[in-house]
Amino acid sequence: VQAQEAAKNATRYNVTAGIARKKNKPLRLAAMSGLISGLTEKESVDYAPTGGLDSLREQWKQGLILKNPGLKNISFSLPLVSAGISHGIFVVSDLFADENTTVVIPAPSWENYSLIFKERWGAEYDEYPFYNSKNGFNIDGLRNTISTCRTDKIICILNFPHNPTGYTPLADEAWEICHVLRDAAEAGKKMLALCDDAYFGLFWEKEIFHESIFALCAELHPNLLAVKLDGATKEDFAWGLRVGFVTFAGKGLTEKHLDAITGKALASIRASVSSASMAGQQLLLKAMASPGYMQEKENALSDLASRYKAVREFVSLHPHKALYPMGFNSGYFLCMRTAGIDAQVLRRKLLDDKGIGTVAIGKEFLRVAWSCVDEEDIAPLFTEIWAAADGLAGTRR
Amino acid sequence: VQAQEAAKNATRYNVTAGIARKKNKPLRLAAMSGLISGLTEKESVDYAPTGGLDSLREQWKQGLILKNPGLKNISFSLPLVSAGISHGIFVVSDLFADENTTVVIPAPSWENYSLIFKERWGAEYDEYPFYNSKNGFNIDGLRNTISTCRTDKIICILNFPHNPTGYTPLADEAWEICHVLRDAAEAGKKMLALCDDAYFGLFWEKEIFHESIFALCAELHPNLLAVKLDGATKEDFAWGLRVGFVTFAGKGLTEKHLDAITGKALASIRASVSSASMAGQQLLLKAMASPGYMQEKENALSDLASRYKAVREFVSLHPHKALYPMGFNSGYFLCMRTAGIDAQVLRRKLLDDKGIGTVAIGKEFLRVAWSCVDEEDIAPLFTEIWAAADGLAGTRR
Repeated sequence: VQAQEAAKNATRYNVTAGIARKKNKPLRLAAMSGLISGLTEKESVDYAPTGGLDSLREQWKQGLILKNPGLKNISFSLPLVSAGISHGIFVVSDLFADENTTVVIPAPSWENYSLIFKERWGAEYDEYPFYNSKNGFNIDGLRNTISTCRTDKIICILNFPHNPTGYTPLADEAWEICHVLRDAAEAGKKMLALCDDAYFGLFWEKEIFHESIFALCAELHPNLLAVKLDGATKEDFAWGLRVGFVTFAGKGLTEKHLDAITGKALASIRASVSSASMAGQQLLLKAMASPGYMQEKENALSDLASRYKAVREFVSLHPHKALYPMGFNSGYFLCMRTAGIDAQVLRRKLLDDKGIGTVAIGKEFLRVAWSCVDEEDIAPLFTEIWAAADGLAGTRR
Repeated sequence: VQAQEAAKNATRYNVTAGIARKKNKPLRLAAMSGLISGLTEKESVDYAPTGGLDSLREQWKQGLILKNPGLKNISFSLPLVSAGISHGIFVVSDLFADENTTVVIPAPSWENYSLIFKERWGAEYDEYPFYNSKNGFNIDGLRNTISTCRTDKIICILNFPHNPTGYTPLADEAWEICHVLRDAAEAGKKMLALCDDAYFGLFWEKEIFHESIFALCAELHPNLLAVKLDGATKEDFAWGLRVGFVTFAGKGLTEKHLDAITGKALASIRASVSSASMAGQQLLLKAMASPGYMQEKENALSDLASRYKAVREFVSLHPHKALYPMGFNSGYFLCMRTAGIDAQVLRRKLLDDKGIGTVAIGKEFLRVAWSCVDEEDIAPLFTEIWAAADGLAGTRR
């Protein structure tokens, strides 16, 4: 608070901050200046505010409305900047998870959820199979799992596009998910819809629900708090800059309520990392202001869309007797169920014999991040994977 | 583990990571490339390893030995990269603090310690006055406070140069601190010496102990774990890049023990931020490799040393009847005890009437970060502060 007041009113000398200035600019080593000529001293080595740069937060909020028209007339908080999206998950867990909370999550899912919610805070962890028998989203699994939760507090992980499957619910599935959540809230459960939108915008099929499910949850029920985690990580192809956002909404929450929750999240950020990277935030802000920005993003997305089509084409033309591609329509990944094959054995063979690195999830799934190879390499890559799987039948029973 | 194996052996296609590549480089938007021309795609937007870049960790370790000759033949861990030094404090608290831990800390101290250890983990928080009656480090206070701790586990905060006082123990004081810690360890307490070296190297007087007290603690006693937190934040004038380091040592700890502790800290990093900024780490690495680096740092330090001298000169020549400069010899700050004056009132007057931003700590201390103004502004700045304090006598009893 004292530093904020000084930033506004210390017109002559501001000697509040633990930094070194020279001629009123942060003292930056020339060895660094040359590397980041596009950023001034103040834009790179100075501290960012704990909750992030105001201008970036405002612009991100405006962007959320553009990307999610459903948010247009809905009240939601000014996004806080987290040190990456994982840090956003941590902040939410810090505020809301404990031993009296159940996390409801599809399997497979990204393992960091379990590390953060289960290992760190001791939350109950109730999994349901991601897919139904039609390779679509398993609404019944979600509903049944929620209905058997013993705790009052439930955190429902909604990570779409989903890691590792690369699946995003279709519009009707998204609505059905919301109905399940609303019913639970109506039944008196204290619901938190954790919308991890890391892969937002990487949508490769028309019938996908093209907004964040956060937009549907934001005014769903007074017993449901919606949290949106997103960031530059995937949306702006800036994984290593560590710039994420945390945004809150909920039916009946006034500006004051949202400020209070945001204040608690701010305290969590402060007591975990102090603040996120200034350089990362400024790079994002400046990129967003650059005239070519939208076109460059569109080009990158259409490049990825071509790769998706190549993957889709390959798996359609080459049904494999042991590798079953799970439903995928978005994001970076394709997950295959390995029938009769131990996915770990397949991964090992691909790596050792073919120099191909993939991720085995348990013994049953192999994840391929097709986003890592160019379009012309898609068919050769999958041809190798298909061939490697031949002859491994019987390694899993 | 799978990703690490793939990084080494996936010579043809590596489709493990949740990123997008183009022609084998991370897909970076042109809008960003122009701003950080000194960093390649891989050096800026790619993910960094959870524990940080190996080359940076190795170089930082070598640097620790150069900066602290006492570490030369001592075994200590390979530093982990944290998302800034605050994050390092969080990681240590995550591993070691709980309700059965007492944090022993001088007052005043940086408030984030209390937020992290007391508010977050419910640790006991035992404070002692930073100074003794001679304006030196209060060894007796430290000893007495430790001797009355009710818990077996004690975390002793050793933040030198100290925020907010700007004081670093002299060589004999540093040894006395170690004797106190060793005695407690010998008496059976499980001691953790948390050496927060954020301001390391900013030493302005000769008789200061010029190494980190970590070097003295590293082989002190089998019941004492020494942790060193430091980083580019202040040492490389890169506050907003958020690159810190966490290093462990302890008498009798083998390579295996150190690896095990480092592994736990790695898990904490993973389950809080995933990894620190790649761009920040690469900027530091490249700056360190730049031919002008050492000279530039030396120039910056001698610039700050001149400012320190100007502050020292002013307070020597102008004793004030109500502002008592506390002992200072290092870092960025000078702290004044405000006799008979409410420091909050003085801060308010300075800000509102003079446009000067300072930090009041409680009602008793005013902190001035003289590092924020150039040498020629030091005397005018303090002249204003001195004048503002006149006439405020009696606002505190």
